[in-house]
Amino acid sequence: MIQRLHDLLDGSYEEMVSIRRYLHQHPELSFQETQTAAFIAEYYKKHGIEHRTNVGGNGVIAKVTGSKPGKTVALRADFDALPIQDEKEVPYKSSVPGVMHACGHDGHTATLLLLAKNLNELKDDLEGEYIFIHQHAEEYAPGGAKPMIEAGCLDGVDVIFGTHLWATAPTGTVQYALGPLMAAADRFEITIQGQGGHGAQPHKTRDAIVVGSQLVMALQQIVSRRLNPIDSAVITVGSFVADNAFNVIADKAKIIGTVRTFKEDVRSFISEEMERIVKGTCLAADCTYEYQYFQGYPAVIPHVEETKFLIESTESVKEVLITEEIAPDMTGEDFSYYLQNVKGTFFFTGARPKNEHTYPHHHPLFDIDEKAMLIAAKILGTAAVTYHNKKQSSKKVNESLLQ
Amino acid sequence: MIQRLHDLLDGSYEEMVSIRRYLHQHPELSFQETQTAAFIAEYYKKHGIEHRTNVGGNGVIAKVTGSKPGKTVALRADFDALPIQDEKEVPYKSSVPGVMHACGHDGHTATLLLLAKNLNELKDDLEGEYIFIHQHAEEYAPGGAKPMIEAGCLDGVDVIFGTHLWATAPTGTVQYALGPLMAAADRFEITIQGQGGHGAQPHKTRDAIVVGSQLVMALQQIVSRRLNPIDSAVITVGSFVADNAFNVIADKAKIIGTVRTFKEDVRSFISEEMERIVKGTCLAADCTYEYQYFQGYPAVIPHVEETKFLIESTESVKEVLITEEIAPDMTGEDFSYYLQNVKGTFFFTGARPKNEHTYPHHHPLFDIDEKAMLIAAKILGTAAVTYHNKKQSSKKVNESLLQ
Amino acid sequence: MIQRLHDLLDGSYEEMVSIRRYLHQHPELSFQETQTAAFIAEYYKKHGIEHRTNVGGNGVIAKVTGSKPGKTVALRADFDALPIQDEKEVPYKSSVPGVMHACGHDGHTATLLLLAKNLNELKDDLEGEYIFIHQHAEEYAPGGAKPMIEAGCLDGVDVIFGTHLWATAPTGTVQYALGPLMAAADRFEITIQGQGGHGAQPHKTRDAIVVGSQLVMALQQIVSRRLNPIDSAVITVGSFVADNAFNVIADKAKIIGTVRTFKEDVRSFISEEMERIVKGTCLAADCTYEYQYFQGYPAVIPHVEETKFLIESTESVKEVLITEEIAPDMTGEDFSYYLQNVKGTFFFTGARPKNEHTYPHHHPLFDIDEKAMLIAAKILGTAAVTYHNKKQSSKKVNESLLQ
Amino acid sequence: MIQRLHDLLDGSYEEMVSIRRYLHQHPELSFQETQTAAFIAEYYKKHGIEHRTNVGGNGVIAKVTGSKPGKTVALRADFDALPIQDEKEVPYKSSVPGVMHACGHDGHTATLLLLAKNLNELKDDLEGEYIFIHQHAEEYAPGGAKPMIEAGCLDGVDVIFGTHLWATAPTGTVQYALGPLMAAADRFEITIQGQGGHGAQPHKTRDAIVVGSQLVMALQQIVSRRLNPIDSAVITVGSFVADNAFNVIADKAKIIGTVRTFKEDVRSFISEEMERIVKGTCLAADCTYEYQYFQGYPAVIPHVEETKFLIESTESVKEVLITEEIAPDMTGEDFSYYLQNVKGTFFFTGARPKNEHTYPHHHPLFDIDEKAMLIAAKILGTAAVTYHNKKQSSKKVNESLLQ
Repeated sequence: MIQRLHDLLDGSYEEMVSIRRYLHQHPELSFQETQTAAFIAEYYKKHGIEHRTNVGGNGVIAKVTGSKPGKTVALRADFDALPIQDEKEVPYKSSVPGVMHACGHDGHTATLLLLAKNLNELKDDLEGEYIFIHQHAEEYAPGGAKPMIEAGCLDGVDVIFGTHLWATAPTGTVQYALGPLMAAADRFEITIQGQGGHGAQPHKTRDAIVVGSQLVMALQQIVSRRLNPIDSAVITVGSFVADNAFNVIADKAKIIGTVRTFKEDVRSFISEEMERIVKGTCLAADCTYEYQYFQGYPAVIPHVEETKFLIESTESVKEVLITEEIAPDMTGEDFSYYLQNVKGTFFFTGARPKNEHTYPHHHPLFDIDEKAMLIAAKILGTAAVTYHNKKQSSKKVNESLLQ
Repeated sequence: MIQRLHDLLDGSYEEMVSIRRYLHQHPELSFQETQTAAFIAEYYKKHGIEHRTNVGGNGVIAKVTGSKPGKTVALRADFDALPIQDEKEVPYKSSVPGVMHACGHDGHTATLLLLAKNLNELKDDLEGEYIFIHQHAEEYAPGGAKPMIEAGCLDGVDVIFGTHLWATAPTGTVQYALGPLMAAADRFEITIQGQGGHGAQPHKTRDAIVVGSQLVMALQQIVSRRLNPIDSAVITVGSFVADNAFNVIADKAKIIGTVRTFKEDVRSFISEEMERIVKGTCLAADCTYEYQYFQGYPAVIPHVEETKFLIESTESVKEVLITEEIAPDMTGEDFSYYLQNVKGTFFFTGARPKNEHTYPHHHPLFDIDEKAMLIAAKILGTAAVTYHNKKQSSKKVNESLLQ
Repeated sequence: MIQRLHDLLDGSYEEMVSIRRYLHQHPELSFQETQTAAFIAEYYKKHGIEHRTNVGGNGVIAKVTGSKPGKTVALRADFDALPIQDEKEVPYKSSVPGVMHACGHDGHTATLLLLAKNLNELKDDLEGEYIFIHQHAEEYAPGGAKPMIEAGCLDGVDVIFGTHLWATAPTGTVQYALGPLMAAADRFEITIQGQGGHGAQPHKTRDAIVVGSQLVMALQQIVSRRLNPIDSAVITVGSFVADNAFNVIADKAKIIGTVRTFKEDVRSFISEEMERIVKGTCLAADCTYEYQYFQGYPAVIPHVEETKFLIESTESVKEVLITEEIAPDMTGEDFSYYLQNVKGTFFFTGARPKNEHTYPHHHPLFDIDEKAMLIAAKILGTAAVTYHNKKQSSKKVNESLLQ
Repeated sequence: MIQRLHDLLDGSYEEMVSIRRYLHQHPELSFQETQTAAFIAEYYKKHGIEHRTNVGGNGVIAKVTGSKPGKTVALRADFDALPIQDEKEVPYKSSVPGVMHACGHDGHTATLLLLAKNLNELKDDLEGEYIFIHQHAEEYAPGGAKPMIEAGCLDGVDVIFGTHLWATAPTGTVQYALGPLMAAADRFEITIQGQGGHGAQPHKTRDAIVVGSQLVMALQQIVSRRLNPIDSAVITVGSFVADNAFNVIADKAKIIGTVRTFKEDVRSFISEEMERIVKGTCLAADCTYEYQYFQGYPAVIPHVEETKFLIESTESVKEVLITEEIAPDMTGEDFSYYLQNVKGTFFFTGARPKNEHTYPHHHPLFDIDEKAMLIAAKILGTAAVTYHNKKQSSKKVNESLLQ
């Protein structure tokens, strides 16, 4: 079965490339991806595969049902693009000014469409059900995952698998984590409201710049002194603005930044400690403040058992040369929401373009090695069709520390 | 003689008001005051008083020579206006949009013109020489005083007197200082050059905001720990700008501010200590920096003996009700340059408008009590004509501590 | 009269020296000066001068009444010594181990005794009354001045004069201030109570050292940002102790220090701001604290009119070569309490030993030029006997800014 | 074979307890453990097992050689005690005042002796060689491991296993880490040398307390901003001492603390960054400094393959109920040196006393559940005798990230 699937996928590679390039030329911004959604739906319609549109927004889900009983396995690909001008010189360059598939979601979509088409062809020999989740709006919080889940895309699902084509790792590499893979990425905004005045008369003012500076220094202590040293976290003040003439004392200082964490308790602790520090610092300085903390996507925390199962699945994919555990990446992904609802895993599929300079994700010259799509399809497909027979893991393993 | 001068000035009050109002309606910005200079020169020409134009720029000086030998006494009035929209509703409101005599220099000029005219009438009975310095560009560094001095306006001068009509003190008040009267007002600009990067990857960066904040905190120690507590000084960071997205780490932070001091050694010490602190802080943080310190006008430090002489001179001016020593004002004035070259003093002549709300200097609704011009003229005139007979002060007084 | 007094004093110089040296050999610590008090009382008894002992403790007051009506003038000398070992090699070296007149109070006492004796001899020609206040316990707060005042030593007094023999100024110099002469010297104690723990487990602790350090930094802002730059003040943390093993996290930090000010409103403002900053800093850090502020002597603020009168009085004292205004000294004196109750002044009488190394007050090798006693006696005496005829000062002077 | 070994160990349990209790009554401090070493040597002598004494100090090593070829496996137990007063009330309480086996090294020794004795009995059926390393001085840096290695205790050794009886985990639990298990624990000492002086004269000083406080704040940035957030580290200032009178300015501040890390590059980076920060801070403040950084034991980093092998070995030990991965412990161990020289692993064997209050290691009431010795012996023995047949791990695993 696995071999048949791999063979079919090999035969579909040209179409996969063709679809990916079409999408690359027609990118759409998050929450505006109506044409892409229509393209996906049309594809399923053409191949007679059951599907549903407008799931939680522009989302599309399709279903292939095997002839034998088994688990319900979901596979997810996102399909939105970014507000970046494509600066590559290739035939499939974006045709939309200022919009570009600079993160590989076009490849994700092509991968999933061909995997779905081929599984559909094999369905008489398959166990269980296969749900293909084409998600809109991953790039822009609050994202498409949450509304698609609320619209039922995970109903009845036993497990979900997803991957990100990863242009900074060589093709043939699979990267996973037994703990968190990607971070929760939050945003905060603090306004220190002092009392402005003439630069020569500090006693008639409350200098918001000094208070803001003191606050920046004090915030360092959360990571250095208040967190368990085992728990990774970042608190970055990205912007500090009190833009005045040289001879005045600042009325207010605006401080904004980001917080990155892997654990929910650390995340909420940081938010609370920040507010405590802002409050105390402003009390000490007789100033007032506004403090706002905006939660972005939670951390992507693959389930350990499913991750180990996925690793085993890569063994039958001959193009996979290296399967490696990596330290978590501090960027975010709304795949986290799926993993909060059902078991599953998320991993990176190496897609570094060969013989070329590598550009990071979100770069105007970003591209992928298209061969990686085939590898991703094989890994996802293998995991999907064999999951029904997965063995239970030993009871002795304590997973709590990994999450 | 003093009484005759006072009587003549009383009789000139209407003309003084008339000139002041004319100038008030025709304000000119610093370094652009050509019409005002022409007006002044025309006045002297009309009254047959020797004068010179284009002194160090738009400056005008006039001379009245007494019939008897004596000292050479200079009196100074500035005549530039400010880039402020006049919002008063009075017949003599500024006719130039966005330009306004919002600091009383119109009054200074009218005062000096009438004083010159009257001293000219009394010249047969006067000792010594009288130099009337009409200075352009006081409001805008590097100012007009310096080039006028370089052009010779103080050549042969023994003493100089000047006053500022002071709208925040009641008419009838004279304010002086036996130490500094106004501060040196300098400017500094610091750029912290770190290494920017992604907000989640602090280890690949050098966070300019944290370094800048640390610097702001460290700069506080100059005033709190490194200066003699007896020496007043202000170091204000007026602007702190590192304006980025929330999820990046700042590449650079721009910090600008002002330093106010009364003593030259304190001034230069602060500049050096600031650079030391910037250097050490950046070394600690592995960042680089640019540090620039721009000297503005020096402190206005009246000579003690001449100040005491001036105080005595006020005793014959019946309109003076209060003569008071005041704590120094932290604003600046380029009268400081005259006092660095010859003996003399500078004082404030109360000019608070009666029965009205008081607006501070540089305010769109600023105005003066015109009666104060008459008082200023009498004080300056009295001091000028009696200076020739001033007694020497006791040798026992140690002036060093006052400066 | 002045000349007669000066002549009498000249004739008393040997006795003055003799008494001073006797006292120098028999120093007594603050609040323990019973023998010295007895010596003083015995002297007055011997000369038939009315006196009272045990005034507010070990204090002694004597009275000389002139034959004509006049003001009541008080003169004060303190007489306690210090817990310092005398290391001088002179015949009049202290005979008491570890106790020494290292601040010149022996000289103050000898000066006042001889002045009293001579005024008593002149009393038939004197106006008014003369109160000689021999004060115990100046060196050790809460001091002797306060209880002596409470015991009535200033009852009926119109004016008080006092001086300090000043070994760092040359003999022949008189130093005065038209503003404050000496500072209020207070003490504070802050205990930061965190939560101790293992050095490797910051998350289980509240690190008192980090909080204490943050507090020290924040306290700098009071002087640099919250006070009027014209107002001198010092806040010194003299001691920071959190003495633990290297591998623990500090449970508590003890921070003690001193505050020096010249104005009561600045003094109370600092105390309040300090508590605000301690409170806010501890709130931010989730720690608790103890904060205590102990007021020492208030600032010594001579009355301006009496100071000017005193300066005039020095003109008749031929040994006075220089009369100079000085910047205030940041040390303290409980003469401040007298000046809070009656008019008067306090000044320094230069007493630098000739041809020798100068040692500062409170130094084991401290000594004075005894000639200074004679000068002090003449100045105080002259002021005392002429005060009855002092003219009122001009109403125009505004003294408020000087205080 | 495994079952035979386990049975023999079961039969040895009484002797194991007896030996442990004997040692518990006769504890010896690090580097002074001559009697304990003699006891160990005597035991081996009694059972005719080849051994060597005075290995790198008081160390003892013994050897059992199997009849068949195989690997050389080392097992290690430490045997020093601590300067703590035993406060337990048990028959085997320490007989030495102020010295106590408060960390379980008595149990380690008893475990290893009985394991050696039984393996010796089975030697005709064993493969390979078995080295029993009885190490002195684990509790006190620089420790006994390093000199024993230098004396050759690892010569020819293929793998080493060691365990710590862990009183805070329940008996039946085995705890391991696939990354670091214990931290490098270093010490630093910093002296800030400022310029002391009178508390009222900051301008004549360089206030070491303010500089020290600024330094403490700046050091926080290493963990918060300069390290990869994935890398755990602790920098604790445990002691800050500038112990002066309240009214002086501190001449010097002494700051000491500890640094905990898991990676050598992080460790050396921190040491360098600390010095940079000290240097820059002192440059900014015009102070000098002394900076010393003392490396303690490196981190204990078990080899991943050997750890996985050890985990498998526990499966045959029926008393093992839970085998769990744990987050690293920030305490130190000189087992790290063995693992720097040969492959191997280190793990914790749960030994929480039943039905009693648990006291942490180094506590005066510390004790262990002696049953844990039997479990430790079985695990170590099982791993030792089966290691010869260990399979090689897959080449695909990238271990680099785990270390």
